[in-house]
Amino acid sequence: MKPSIPKGTRDFNSVEMARRNYIFDTIKKYFRLYGFEQIETPAMENLSTLTGKYGDEGDQLLYKILNSRIHESKDKEKLLEEFRLSLEKSKNTELLTERALRYDLTVPFARYVVMHQHEITFPFRRFQMQPVWRADKPQKGRYREFYQCDADIIGSNSLVNEVELIQLMDDVYSELKIPVTIKINNRKILAGIAEVIGAPERMIEIITIIDKLDKVGYEAVDEELRSKGFDEKQRDIILFQKGLMRWMPTNSFVSQLQALKDQNYQSDILNKGIEELDFILSRVKKNVQLDFSLARGLNYYTGAIIEVKANAGTFTPSITGGGRYDDLTGIFGLPNMSGVGISFGIDRIYDVMEELNLFNADKLNKEHTQVLVMHMGKEEQQHGLQLLFKLRRMGIRSEIYPEDDKKINKQFDYATKKNIPYSIVIGSNEMKTEKYTLKTKDDRYPDLAFEQIVTKIINNK
Amino acid sequence: MKPSIPKGTRDFNSVEMARRNYIFDTIKKYFRLYGFEQIETPAMENLSTLTGKYGDEGDQLLYKILNSRIHESKDKEKLLEEFRLSLEKSKNTELLTERALRYDLTVPFARYVVMHQHEITFPFRRFQMQPVWRADKPQKGRYREFYQCDADIIGSNSLVNEVELIQLMDDVYSELKIPVTIKINNRKILAGIAEVIGAPERMIEIITIIDKLDKVGYEAVDEELRSKGFDEKQRDIILFQKGLMRWMPTNSFVSQLQALKDQNYQSDILNKGIEELDFILSRVKKNVQLDFSLARGLNYYTGAIIEVKANAGTFTPSITGGGRYDDLTGIFGLPNMSGVGISFGIDRIYDVMEELNLFNADKLNKEHTQVLVMHMGKEEQQHGLQLLFKLRRMGIRSEIYPEDDKKINKQFDYATKKNIPYSIVIGSNEMKTEKYTLKTKDDRYPDLAFEQIVTKIINNK
Repeated sequence: MKPSIPKGTRDFNSVEMARRNYIFDTIKKYFRLYGFEQIETPAMENLSTLTGKYGDEGDQLLYKILNSRIHESKDKEKLLEEFRLSLEKSKNTELLTERALRYDLTVPFARYVVMHQHEITFPFRRFQMQPVWRADKPQKGRYREFYQCDADIIGSNSLVNEVELIQLMDDVYSELKIPVTIKINNRKILAGIAEVIGAPERMIEIITIIDKLDKVGYEAVDEELRSKGFDEKQRDIILFQKGLMRWMPTNSFVSQLQALKDQNYQSDILNKGIEELDFILSRVKKNVQLDFSLARGLNYYTGAIIEVKANAGTFTPSITGGGRYDDLTGIFGLPNMSGVGISFGIDRIYDVMEELNLFNADKLNKEHTQVLVMHMGKEEQQHGLQLLFKLRRMGIRSEIYPEDDKKINKQFDYATKKNIPYSIVIGSNEMKTEKYTLKTKDDRYPDLAFEQIVTKIINNK
Repeated sequence: MKPSIPKGTRDFNSVEMARRNYIFDTIKKYFRLYGFEQIETPAMENLSTLTGKYGDEGDQLLYKILNSRIHESKDKEKLLEEFRLSLEKSKNTELLTERALRYDLTVPFARYVVMHQHEITFPFRRFQMQPVWRADKPQKGRYREFYQCDADIIGSNSLVNEVELIQLMDDVYSELKIPVTIKINNRKILAGIAEVIGAPERMIEIITIIDKLDKVGYEAVDEELRSKGFDEKQRDIILFQKGLMRWMPTNSFVSQLQALKDQNYQSDILNKGIEELDFILSRVKKNVQLDFSLARGLNYYTGAIIEVKANAGTFTPSITGGGRYDDLTGIFGLPNMSGVGISFGIDRIYDVMEELNLFNADKLNKEHTQVLVMHMGKEEQQHGLQLLFKLRRMGIRSEIYPEDDKKINKQFDYATKKNIPYSIVIGSNEMKTEKYTLKTKDDRYPDLAFEQIVTKIINNK
């Protein structure tokens, strides 16, 4: 039998792990610098916590856990009977299974806030880095198991939070050296537009359509709006004079907002949106692009929406996204908790960094073995063991070749394949004199300070 | 609706996370110091990879994922029909589900080694820290979702590996300051004993019975052996003269081994076991106790077996265990790969450390906010924002109170509840003079170096 793993899932080897850890550690460092506290929630949630939160499509992508009382029977007839009884008892098909794997970190976070509301200090700044699972069709950049790295501030209406989150994204991507475009819009503008064209109840529908702008272009969006019954005047307003405003220079949010104001639309919510964007953008000018066509798919956003894309390489999906929601915890019984959050997609960031060759060996090699103790046989290995323990006591990451019947070439081969830069060979001479030499195969990058320290450790008794 | 989480699972707040991270980071540090490379495997494995590897009981404890083609239908009749068809097509009940959550890290590791054998440099030293899931009855110290931290060396017969792993456990527990007893035995001794009493095929059965020694005592074990048909002479041999050898002084492994040799049993495998223990114990004298009654439940062990218990507090289950296996990957088609590994149970280590009061605030507070910027209103907050960005640029973990309509008491309250040690208050005076004062509420532990640095940052323009 040839073993395999489920489609859409991955193993990570140590090189991939070092790179992933570098991304995780960088994001984590900034989360902490910005005062976010880490929490974790279980991989499994009750099905009732998750269903209905991601739309019909999302519900279908949940990985559901078979109830254990069902999979206990090994007899087919009995099993079928158990299913039948379970179905009879249940109001819907869901009682066959009572748990599912989490689909994102946002809904578990909302559940967490409601469950622990009396222990939490609000405004609550939490971060969370855990895998999520979706029974989606796997394709490039889309996996069935992937990590999300979320930071949210809940229990505060202040737009200072938006400012901080944008600053945080900018800091993270500066350190990772990924050139990015941060785009911002406000759902209140979209709600205002829906109001202005006399179809406030169709806002989500409009968002869903214009969300495709990047992929399908203006003509197609215009055509879809037409086919859904929006007349030319409505379409003109939705698309802001056929997208003219979208192509305004990046750093002129003042004139972009002014142009919208000049339309003189009579909508309180639209004006509130303009005011909020003005507040945020005047404080984070750098690198942020106002884009009135940015919609983002998720229903729960009510204020600022933010999206980050790499602007080098071929990877087009967004690598970070977020926004403000006014009522995420209401579904669990705690209304009026405004919050704002962002989510880094580390699997996508990884793909971008790999393509752009941004994994810098210097930053990654802190995880790997530095010294290999080699030996000519049994006695030399025993002798080397003491040296090994000494190195480790001093914090030098080191190994000894464990077999004692292998030629020295085999051991050098091991060091080469594992990229271990330094070695110490124990022969009869070293055993007698107790003098040891640190050798390196790679003279191109000498680390003299390290060599000095190690030489001292191994030769000082 | 009141939200809840599945029985046997847990949320972790930021205090718990800081403590858990401290344990993870300590273990990880030593794994790397000893040259282990990190890998990760998916949470879901194919059911065929997992079933039959943990015994019948283990199979029942697997969390199985419902096939998505089944849970797509919302109609009860259709759903039942789908189940019936699936059952008909399948040879057993398992095709209703094709995937399950991993039950431990060892079987996924074996699967990984076989799948990636051509990319791996052997001897392969890998570590892995990930959650596992078991549909077990939850009780104190036993969860349905918990972490394992495993280190294994595979592709090497050398007993030096056992020596290193014992040393590693000792290092980790020294740093965590948990007083422990490390026990060792060798399955070859147990196999030899089974041979000597003329029942080599009953070794696993004997192991299962004497594994209960700690819990039920000698009389009960003796009685169970009797009831299973072992005669008095056999029982005497199995229990080493009714356990006399068990109570020998800890550090006299030489005399313990000699006493066993003196029995003069004619068994090659038993003598090999004695020889191996002698090799290992003569190199790691410290803290290791030879215990011939140590059995460990898992079937795949074939050589040294190791177990660690805390010897302070009330927590009795083992907190680390491991051993040598000669054929873990054979089941996946790669025979003759000897390996040895250990597994730290971090959830249990947490419980022990909590009981023994070993979580040292000094070591944990590196994750928390250091400075809160407070303010008297809108303008002061705006002014404070620049100070906040400056602090963060210098790596000081800091926050600003986001609301601009809250009294200063409310802000102090926030700092107190979140244990933020330092604050800077921005009032009209500070805005005018641009001189700021770092204050602390807790004068008991002044950190003068930190105060000096921060004062310099905020007052140097």
